[in-house]
Amino acid sequence: MARPTATVSLAEKFGLFADAWAPKVVGEFNDLLVKAVKAKGDFVWHKHDDIDEIFLVTKGELTIHLRERDVVVGEDEFFVVPKGTEHRPSAREECELLLFEPAGVVNTGDAASSDLTAAVDPWI
Amino acid sequence: MARPTATVSLAEKFGLFADAWAPKVVGEFNDLLVKAVKAKGDFVWHKHDDIDEIFLVTKGELTIHLRERDVVVGEDEFFVVPKGTEHRPSAREECELLLFEPAGVVNTGDAASSDLTAAVDPWI
Repeated sequence: MARPTATVSLAEKFGLFADAWAPKVVGEFNDLLVKAVKAKGDFVWHKHDDIDEIFLVTKGELTIHLRERDVVVGEDEFFVVPKGTEHRPSAREECELLLFEPAGVVNTGDAASSDLTAAVDPWI
Repeated sequence: MARPTATVSLAEKFGLFADAWAPKVVGEFNDLLVKAVKAKGDFVWHKHDDIDEIFLVTKGELTIHLRERDVVVGEDEFFVVPKGTEHRPSAREECELLLFEPAGVVNTGDAASSDLTAAVDPWI
């Protein structure tokens, strides 16, 4: 039997960092990483060819620009960006969200040369 | 390009049902199902041999009994029960939580003959 992990508090984890668009790994299950992200301002346009991306907003409000429309994701709401869909997350005020991603996903997708690219997301 | 889904509000989804220990599917990404569950009272002891199970509590408080200790998972906290670990979720007052599971997972795991077994979790 694997050793059970500790309970993870989102408030505690989000209190540990301030940088926007810099995912932190806060949990792992079945080869998926749970990532805490603070969003503020505009991210870059990008897409992920092989994975759907779920944005679960836990605090504040996130706008996800798609090429044909904008999606507003409020607190305690989620939205799934299907694979291959260009999108640009944006937040006027700081917002907090969770991602659930396989290890190895690059946050900027195909726009991998951006200043916002996080090479390997750190555990906190 | 796949068609983007709609934004999903947890409050709206949890408002659609009242039955405890009966997972409802509220989203899907990368062959994972997002399931909304209301917990009240005691579930059965069980384990899942092949998957880790994440319990993300969005309202109230869940106690997860393990054989060697109890884990209390508060609001906006999560806990991962590693594969093969016997556990028994329990909630004195009604609580709301999300699961993220591959399609085909039986909620009662190896204790599959329980009255609490949900054959195929419905979409809501």
